[in-house]
Amino acid sequence: EIVAAIEARLDTRPKPLAGRRIIVTSGPTHEPIDPVRYIANRSSGKQGHAIAAALARLGADVRLVSGPVGIPDPAGIDTIHVESAREMRDAVEGLLPADAAVFVAAVADWRTANSADEKIKKVPGDGPPTLQMVENPDILATIGHHRNRPYLVVGFAAETQNIVANAETKLKKKGVDFIVANDVSAAGGAMGGDRNRVKIVSRTGVEAWPDMSKDEVAARLADVIAERLKTVAV
Amino acid sequence: EIVAAIEARLDTRPKPLAGRRIIVTSGPTHEPIDPVRYIANRSSGKQGHAIAAALARLGADVRLVSGPVGIPDPAGIDTIHVESAREMRDAVEGLLPADAAVFVAAVADWRTANSADEKIKKVPGDGPPTLQMVENPDILATIGHHRNRPYLVVGFAAETQNIVANAETKLKKKGVDFIVANDVSAAGGAMGGDRNRVKIVSRTGVEAWPDMSKDEVAARLADVIAERLKTVAV
Repeated sequence: EIVAAIEARLDTRPKPLAGRRIIVTSGPTHEPIDPVRYIANRSSGKQGHAIAAALARLGADVRLVSGPVGIPDPAGIDTIHVESAREMRDAVEGLLPADAAVFVAAVADWRTANSADEKIKKVPGDGPPTLQMVENPDILATIGHHRNRPYLVVGFAAETQNIVANAETKLKKKGVDFIVANDVSAAGGAMGGDRNRVKIVSRTGVEAWPDMSKDEVAARLADVIAERLKTVAV
Repeated sequence: EIVAAIEARLDTRPKPLAGRRIIVTSGPTHEPIDPVRYIANRSSGKQGHAIAAALARLGADVRLVSGPVGIPDPAGIDTIHVESAREMRDAVEGLLPADAAVFVAAVADWRTANSADEKIKKVPGDGPPTLQMVENPDILATIGHHRNRPYLVVGFAAETQNIVANAETKLKKKGVDFIVANDVSAAGGAMGGDRNRVKIVSRTGVEAWPDMSKDEVAARLADVIAERLKTVAV
């Protein structure tokens, strides 16, 4: 915290995002099955936290909404901690209005229809349970079509196949400006690691960025966001 | 590591577990649904890691088998990292024979019948999937009835209700010497926290320990294990 504050003071680089409020989501969500069990997405939070930090370095007033992760809050950034998709949606809506929102979190698509209040016990003779899933709120679509929609809405898409086609579908349906699509198949190596290879999918085309560190992806994405917000009144 | 090594050299306390090989499991297991989703138990690994460290301080040759946790490996202790219940069972069996085994990990009782190789996509018109569960291997029962069974087998039971009755059932079925039962209901506060209130359930009765830190529970349990192994040839 102290080091970050000193660095911020010594930092004389331009602050193109000064006066901009930007919401970032990061990490997974955990959806309870019962008090001891849950369903989760794999997500270390490294990319989302790096993006929050990169936006703050350009002067933005960043609000980070993070699911359960094992990494510390980025120094000097207001961070709200949530568990489930519903809590994340409520936290994000509570932070509107904002100039931009970047949805990096790997939100669980489903939760169990009925989460139990007591631990589900093995019953002799009974087999294991069947978990009926219901859809979680779609946070990206909710904000993409919100009446307080931020000027710029950026989504992330983790895919193991048909990466660009899936991102293009998401782009149309969810009311977002562009999608950062990454390959999370084992071969891609993004999951949990420190590097990432992403494609920027917008209505005007697909831009493939080379393999780089998650910090470099974050810095470059922050520059793109600053560029897009340049013509918008503060 | 260095600090731990120096502390170990300076530590002149008795080493009643010198020459004893003890297996400890800790943390949750993660059971894949597809490459990005999994089912997990809530478990920080704090209690299991503390027990591994406490046993090592009494001179034991500790082998820790840990599921995915956000805390570091205990200094100076051989740690094997696993994800699923099946990986944990294989790791534990591979470490036999041992003088004692302490099963602190919160192993998932079930996994999905078929984990998908590619990310399960939302299909328009289709509802969310139903996840059919199958039983995971019962690591405690497997080792409790193993032909290379350690002399002393200790189980943990996280319960939200009927704590002692559930532990007594587990004691009989799984071939263990005693169960450390704890209340993981929200009121208990053990989950993720630094304190724990446990009951030691054995064939001779139930001993309720007062609320204490997880480090204190670990130290006291290590003393009990040393006492039980005292009469066994090294």
